[in-house]
Formats: sequence, C-alpha cells, structure tokens
Amino acid sequence: MAVATADGGIVLGGSADVGFSIQSISKVFGLTLALGKVGDELWKRVGREPSGTAFNSIVQLEQEAGIPRNPFINAGAIVVTDVNLGGYRPREALGELLRFVRYLAEDETIAIDDEVARSEAQTGFRNIALANYMRSFGNLVHPVELVLGTYFHQCAIAMTCRQLALAGRYLMLDGCHPDGGRVVPERRARRINALMLTCGHYDASGDFAFRVGMPGKSGVGGGILAIVPGSASIAVWSPGLNENGNSKLGSLALERLAEATGWSVFSARLQPAR
Amino acid sequence: MAVATADGGIVLGGSADVGFSIQSISKVFGLTLALGKVGDELWKRVGREPSGTAFNSIVQLEQEAGIPRNPFINAGAIVVTDVNLGGYRPREALGELLRFVRYLAEDETIAIDDEVARSEAQTGFRNIALANYMRSFGNLVHPVELVLGTYFHQCAIAMTCRQLALAGRYLMLDGCHPDGGRVVPERRARRINALMLTCGHYDASGDFAFRVGMPGKSGVGGGILAIVPGSASIAVWSPGLNENGNSKLGSLALERLAEATGWSVFSARLQPAR
Amino acid sequence: MAVATADGGIVLGGSADVGFSIQSISKVFGLTLALGKVGDELWKRVGREPSGTAFNSIVQLEQEAGIPRNPFINAGAIVVTDVNLGGYRPREALGELLRFVRYLAEDETIAIDDEVARSEAQTGFRNIALANYMRSFGNLVHPVELVLGTYFHQCAIAMTCRQLALAGRYLMLDGCHPDGGRVVPERRARRINALMLTCGHYDASGDFAFRVGMPGKSGVGGGILAIVPGSASIAVWSPGLNENGNSKLGSLALERLAEATGWSVFSARLQPAR
Amino acid sequence: MAVATADGGIVLGGSADVGFSIQSISKVFGLTLALGKVGDELWKRVGREPSGTAFNSIVQLEQEAGIPRNPFINAGAIVVTDVNLGGYRPREALGELLRFVRYLAEDETIAIDDEVARSEAQTGFRNIALANYMRSFGNLVHPVELVLGTYFHQCAIAMTCRQLALAGRYLMLDGCHPDGGRVVPERRARRINALMLTCGHYDASGDFAFRVGMPGKSGVGGGILAIVPGSASIAVWSPGLNENGNSKLGSLALERLAEATGWSVFSARLQPAR
Repeated sequence: MAVATADGGIVLGGSADVGFSIQSISKVFGLTLALGKVGDELWKRVGREPSGTAFNSIVQLEQEAGIPRNPFINAGAIVVTDVNLGGYRPREALGELLRFVRYLAEDETIAIDDEVARSEAQTGFRNIALANYMRSFGNLVHPVELVLGTYFHQCAIAMTCRQLALAGRYLMLDGCHPDGGRVVPERRARRINALMLTCGHYDASGDFAFRVGMPGKSGVGGGILAIVPGSASIAVWSPGLNENGNSKLGSLALERLAEATGWSVFSARLQPAR
Repeated sequence: MAVATADGGIVLGGSADVGFSIQSISKVFGLTLALGKVGDELWKRVGREPSGTAFNSIVQLEQEAGIPRNPFINAGAIVVTDVNLGGYRPREALGELLRFVRYLAEDETIAIDDEVARSEAQTGFRNIALANYMRSFGNLVHPVELVLGTYFHQCAIAMTCRQLALAGRYLMLDGCHPDGGRVVPERRARRINALMLTCGHYDASGDFAFRVGMPGKSGVGGGILAIVPGSASIAVWSPGLNENGNSKLGSLALERLAEATGWSVFSARLQPAR
Repeated sequence: MAVATADGGIVLGGSADVGFSIQSISKVFGLTLALGKVGDELWKRVGREPSGTAFNSIVQLEQEAGIPRNPFINAGAIVVTDVNLGGYRPREALGELLRFVRYLAEDETIAIDDEVARSEAQTGFRNIALANYMRSFGNLVHPVELVLGTYFHQCAIAMTCRQLALAGRYLMLDGCHPDGGRVVPERRARRINALMLTCGHYDASGDFAFRVGMPGKSGVGGGILAIVPGSASIAVWSPGLNENGNSKLGSLALERLAEATGWSVFSARLQPAR
Repeated sequence: MAVATADGGIVLGGSADVGFSIQSISKVFGLTLALGKVGDELWKRVGREPSGTAFNSIVQLEQEAGIPRNPFINAGAIVVTDVNLGGYRPREALGELLRFVRYLAEDETIAIDDEVARSEAQTGFRNIALANYMRSFGNLVHPVELVLGTYFHQCAIAMTCRQLALAGRYLMLDGCHPDGGRVVPERRARRINALMLTCGHYDASGDFAFRVGMPGKSGVGGGILAIVPGSASIAVWSPGLNENGNSKLGSLALERLAEATGWSVFSARLQPAR
C-alpha cells in the first residue's frame, strides 16, 4: 500500500515498490485525457450510470444501441480509447498517455509491459466482440484492431503502488498537480471522483461505496486506486480477486483504513476546509 | 429550499414551509428503522447495488430470485416495510415511523396525508405486482395487503422543506441527533449516505452524483433530501419531474448550490476536521 | 392415454378413465372461446410468438409494455380470461366454458374441482403479480380478483384422458365437431394448432416440436393434449414433470407414438386427402 | 415463385429463373451437412428453441453462456459453420456445401457470388462480435476469421427460385432425393422441418406458422424456402422486407397459396398416406 497525502507526504507499506499491471485502473487516466480532448461531447458516446452488470457484459449494449453505460466498464473504456486515438497512430496515442501518467507520478520510469499487452491481444475475444458490436452501431471511429491494440497496451502499463498513489494526487487536489499546475478543472476532478465512486468497481461499486466510502478504481491485476478528496491518494495491490473481479485483500485493507482514519467521503469528519 | 447546517442554523428560501408528500424520501427513514431492528441481516433480503433500471422495474427481481437490488427502489422499500412490520400491526408500525421522523425533525405536527395514501392504494397495480412477486419467492413475511397498506401510508407522510432538512441532520452528523443523542452508529450513518449516493435517484443516480455530488434521495412528489456530511442537510421541493422521475428544478438547484459552496463530497474543499 | 381418431374410434390405454386437473390445457379451450367473442381483435392484447422464457416469466411483460407473448403462457391466458369475462360474472363465464368443453367431449359429467381452484387461489402469488402488472399497463379490464378467480377455476377443470381426447377432436377435424357442426372456422382451427406447436410447451416448445412433431398443450397436472390434424386427437397423463414443467413420461409416450405411426405434421406420410 | 411437387412436377411463376442471394436460407443446407457429420452431438453446442429475439441478438448468448438458441439465428449458424469446417480449409468446406446443394437441385451451375461475400465480410461487425463472443465461451473451435469467411461465402450462394425449390425436395420427401437416394434419415428430415417451423423466421416464426402453416426459412435477400411434407417444396423471392427481416410479399404469397391449396401442416386436409 502507498498513501500520498495532501500535505505532500507519502506513507508506504508492504511491497509498495513492486510493479504490477494496472489494467483497468488505466481507465481513469484514459478518461481524463479524453475529457481534455472532447469535453462533455464524450457523454454522447458513453453514459455515466452504474451498469448493474459485469465488467464485460454485452447485454446492456444491445438494449441501449451501442452506448456503454459508463467509461469504466470495458465497452466504455474502448470508446474512450477510440476518442484518444483521434488523429494519432496507436504508438503516438500510447506515448501521450504514458507521458501523462509519468507527469502525474513525477516518474519517468513508468512503462508498458509489452508481453502482457500481447497476451491480452491473443485471448481477448470478449473485448473484440464488444468493440465490433459497438462498431456495428457506429460508436467506434477507428478500425477495431487499432482501438483494441491501443486499449490492450494501455491496460498493460506497469506501476508500483508508490507510483500509482502519486499519479492519483490530482484527483485528491481538486484537479491540481502538487507542483501547482492545473491538470483538469476543479469541476472535472470532482466528476471523475463521482464516476469512480458509482462505477469504479463494476457491479460491486455499491458495495465498495457502502463498505469503504471512497472513490476508487480497481484492476484485474489486483490493484486499486482510491481517492479521499483533500486528504489522500491511496494505492493498494493484492492479486487475489473476489467474485466481482476486484482485489479481495485490497478492498479489505481500504475498508480498515477508512474505519481507522475516518477517510470516508460520507463521514462528517471530512468538513469544509477553512 | 431549506438548509440545516452543522452549527445548528437553518436557512430557508421560497416555499420552505409548504407541506408536500415526501413519497420515496420516506425510504431513508424506513431503512434507518429497519437497520435498527435487524442490522446487517437486512442485506440477506435486499442488495445494496445500483439497479441500472427504473424505480419500479420487475425484470431484475426475476433474474435475482426476488431479492431487490437496493432498499431505495420500490421493491426494496417494500421488503424494508415488511421488516418494520415485524410484530406490529400496520397502525403501530406507522406510529413508530411517525414518532421517529417527528423526533428527528423536532416537530410533533408531522402527519400522514390519508387521502394521498388511499389514492396510492387504489392505483398502485405495479407495486401490488412487485409485492406478490417477491412473496412468491418467499421474500415477504406479512400478507401483501398489510405490507402495501403500510408502505402507501409511509410514502404519504407530508412534510415541509424545513421539516425535512431538520429530519436529515443525523445523516450530516455521523448518526447523532443535534440534541447529542445517538440515532444510529457512526458507521451506519456513513453507509446510509453511501446508499443514497449510489442508489438514491433510481437509474439517474450516477448522473446526480456526477452533477451534484451529494448523497440524496428523491421522491415523486418533487422533493429531494441531500446530505453534505459534516456540513449540511438540505431539502428542496419542486413538483416538475424529469424523465427519470426526479425533481427537475430541485436537481438543478442542488447542482448550483454545490457549485457555489463546494459542498460536494468529491471536492477537496471538504477536508478532515481537526 | 386416449387416442380419438378421425374415423370416430377411440383407443384407450392405462388409466384413461381417471380424472386429473387439466390446468394449462384449459388455455386451449379458453382461447377458442375468446377468439369466438372478439376474433382477431384479441391479437392487439396478446402476441403469438414463442416467449423464449418460462411459463410464468414477467421479464418479457416489462420489455413489451404489458402485452404477453402468446396466449399459452400464464400472462397471456389471464388476458384471454379477461376477454371471456366480458359482460359476465365469473360464475357465468365459467359456466359457459364448462358447457363448451362438455359439448366438445359429449360428456355432461365434466366439472371443476373447487378444492384445487381454492388452493391455487391461495398460493398463486406469481399469477397475482402478473395480473396486477398487466393491469398497470391497462391490459386487464376487469378487477384482478375476478379475473384470477375465474382463471384459477378454469385451470381446475378435472377431466380424464378419454374426455380430453374427445374434447380435442375439433382441432383434428379442421374446426368441426364430429356431429358435423362447426365449432370454429377452418382457418381458426389451423391457427390454434399452429400456436400449440410453437408455444404449447413454454420454453420447451421447440424441443417438443423437434421430438414429437405434433401441436400440443401441456398442463402442470401432468396432462398433454396433442393433435394430428386429419388423424388423431390424443390425451396423455403422467404426473411426473421434467425441468420445463411438462409431463416427462407423457412427452416420451407421444414421441414413441409419433415414431410408430408417422403421426408427425413434419412427415411426408401425412399427405393431402383425395 | 417455384413449386416442386411430390409427383416430380414443377410449377413456375414470375421471375422464377432469376438468381438471388439465398443468404440465411443456406443455414438449412449447412445444418443438414453438420448433422451428417456430428449427429446429435451438435445439440451440445446449439439449442433448438425459438429465440424470442432478433436474428442478430447477442443478449441471449450472454445469458446462456455462449450457446445459441437454435441453428437458424446468426450465432447458431456460425457454430454450424464451425462444425462444417472441421478438418477442412474454408475453400474445401465451401466446395463440399456447393456440391451438396448442386446434388440436391440437380444443377451444376449453382455458384457463390464472391462480390456479395466480400461486401458482407467488410460490414459484418455484428457477426464478428457474435463469433468472438462465442469464442470467448469456447464454443468456436476454428479461428474466427476462417469461420466467418466461410459463413459469409455460404450466405452468398446465388440461386433461382427453381433451383431452390428443387434443392428443398428432400425435406418434402422424408429425407429422400427424388432419384431415390437417401439424403438424411427420415427422422432427421422431420426434425429439420420442425426447426424451420419453430425458428425459421427469427422472432416472427410464430406469426409465419400462424398465417402460413409451413416449415420455412427466410433470407435477407428476400427469398423463402417453404416445405409441405409429402406435397411440395416451394421457393419464393421478393426483395422487400418486413420489420422482422423477412420477405413481405413472399410471406403473403405463401399465405395465399396455403389458403388456396390447404397446404398447411395444421390442416386436416393433409392426412396419412395409404
């Protein structure tokens, strides 16, 4: 676990400097970039409601004409990747994303694990299905192969808990980089946090909000990024997953941390700053 | 609109002393009572995930064997009512609920509008269907007529914005009554807030979290109760509804209030109290 | 088993004179009466497609605005009962149906088993749900209690295999009673047969058509009525049900009979009469 | 229209010698071949129930773990194509299918329209999605590209009404070729007819059975193959489609033909041959 606090400190525990595949946590950074490119136009192509279904469900797409419920289920993240590709080749789009994450974490060593990306590309039949399905509704602009190639590589970014906690600080700081620069407008930072809280854990998002009470985004690699606005950016990593595909021990660790610190957005102990 | 603040003040605007039917907002008070009676046992009979469907959908019930997704859709609130009936007659259960709401609001004049309750009972075919459907799965203990009779009367509680904002203060104060008494444990208050944020506006809960950023519960009568933990308990009322069955102007007023004050749980301006 | 043939004979086997509750098989007679009353207007309120779902599913009703898929699932039969009630009290409507069945079977002893009807009425929560649900869409005209009371009594008609096979002869004879009278127009008889083939066994209708190849209607009491147009009206009864709620041995007996006789509507051995 | 009768005659009307793309009608021939290869093993990978949904729906696949409802919806036909590929290259599998259809129709000129196949391959995003989706459940053995390439070419077989009516004769003759050879066992011919009746027109199969009363299979090119066991094999073609994707005038022509001739499998006029 790594906890970056609003006063600039960082607290590490366990294997906080061991790298892992951030997988779906990358959807947070991808979404942030896409909103910077097209703003609220994005919401014509992706919804912002909890899906009530699993991370790779295709049912909802059929019922809602190819518009994914939110940007944190796979279908939604694939559309976001399509937006980020606009005008670029995959390599360029991935370069932009990597530069963005490195800037956020102030760490130039962050990289993509090509082997992980390749193994995804070979077995991701469900994601190929989702992408072609949305393409059939006209909700993908670029060729499916390019979008998915980019998507698989984005998911294969390798980071440590330390790097991830540092990269999430802009969501703790109302959209500002700790160096004072503005990463996103204040309102957008709040909104990304809101989406993480309502949609960040697939069909267990309600349970995570209920037990932990922090905006969070999980990845199938066992990582979770959780934000306490004004207080902390937290990364945990533990590979064992629960039945909803979220880190089992990671969730538990965050629940205990929230109990101990009062770091729940639903707690009165979080009060307006003077 | 009425805003009760953590320091004990109250700010009123518009027709804050005109009564209206709180309808589904009553589900918050019913849930609080039921958790006091059976605690976490409740979650064996009701889920706590966003439904992804409309407030009166029956599809999810069939797919999940009669277990409603959360206590704030109609089916879930009917199960909660069944819990609150335990060992009581409807009149007694309603009396207990009314006493609870009066205690929260410190106002003995709050009452049920019998005429509203009767009109519900005559036209609520969809709710009768939901209740019988859950009964067929064994998820209702009492006779359907008694449960629904109680439910329709609970929804027919009439309150003003002032009364409603006052009644919501325990959720702003980590479970305490302003008189210092504990209404619910701190953790339970946080969890009710979490449920309001993820499930309080039916299939527009994500949008409300995105735009407003406060735990809230809407009613078809045009009212919304919104909570800013540590800061404010807010009631708004405006009868015109949007396509999701939530107050159109009420949502907008709360969105502007959140912008103006920073009262979003996703904002860094809400920081830990020292 | 009882087999009534087109030449006026009847062959009996096993307990062909033991009465049983015909249950959903009564939907065939109810549909025939309703078409006589309102003709093709019926299809504005009920579809004629296989449902793809279980006999008591409510999902399809929500997706299709209260219009049941076909008259042989419970929801569809409840609408048909509502049509048959038109202008009558339940007792009168049931009297009409009984007279119709007695006329078809040429047997005045056929009666309703009141005890069976009462037990249905006490436990049929799912059917109460279906009826109220359709009422909420305006697809029931009469009060739910009256419609369901009539429906439960209709399902409780007790018949023997002999009586049932005799009652089905009009569907074997292109709509004529063996006494020469016309029960329904020829085209309507064909169409009722078509509905029995595509929808008569709930979500196992395709399998029954595949294995047996006769229009048929099953009941949860273990009975099946099967028609070979121009050749035979067959009733079987065996209480053990398979996972789709159809008589297990009854289906098997019909499959073997079809093999032995060539009595499949899909067989070339059935050729145009000269 | 072309009508091949059991006595060896053929009646032609309109543009019966103009070729068109048979599209989904090819699923009948593909299914016949696959059953010859793997027999009832096929039913472990494909169901035989009406789907209750559109021809290209993916919802049912998710709910039923990648097993298509029947071999006549797209997903089912893609699995059938995968079976037919077994041990062959696409060109060989297509050659086998072409030889089979030419043998049935006794016409060596029948061919695949490569241009049609190519245009399908370029725009069939929905079918690519279906195939990858099933692959993700392990219900496709061969690479998706090979299966779909074969499938698109199979659908692009061009035939005239005359050729199609001739090719369908084995289903009229209990599985025999008019030359006396056995194409499929009698029981299998009946079963293919049963599947055509219950599933041959997507979510309008019930309506086609109701109005026409013949086993039939439609194609998006405007063709329909309909079978009257023992009596006729009929092909109609008219490009205008109704809302369910079936030939509008073609269906009407068959309905009128059935009225005029009594050629409904639900009519008593079809009686056992002596």
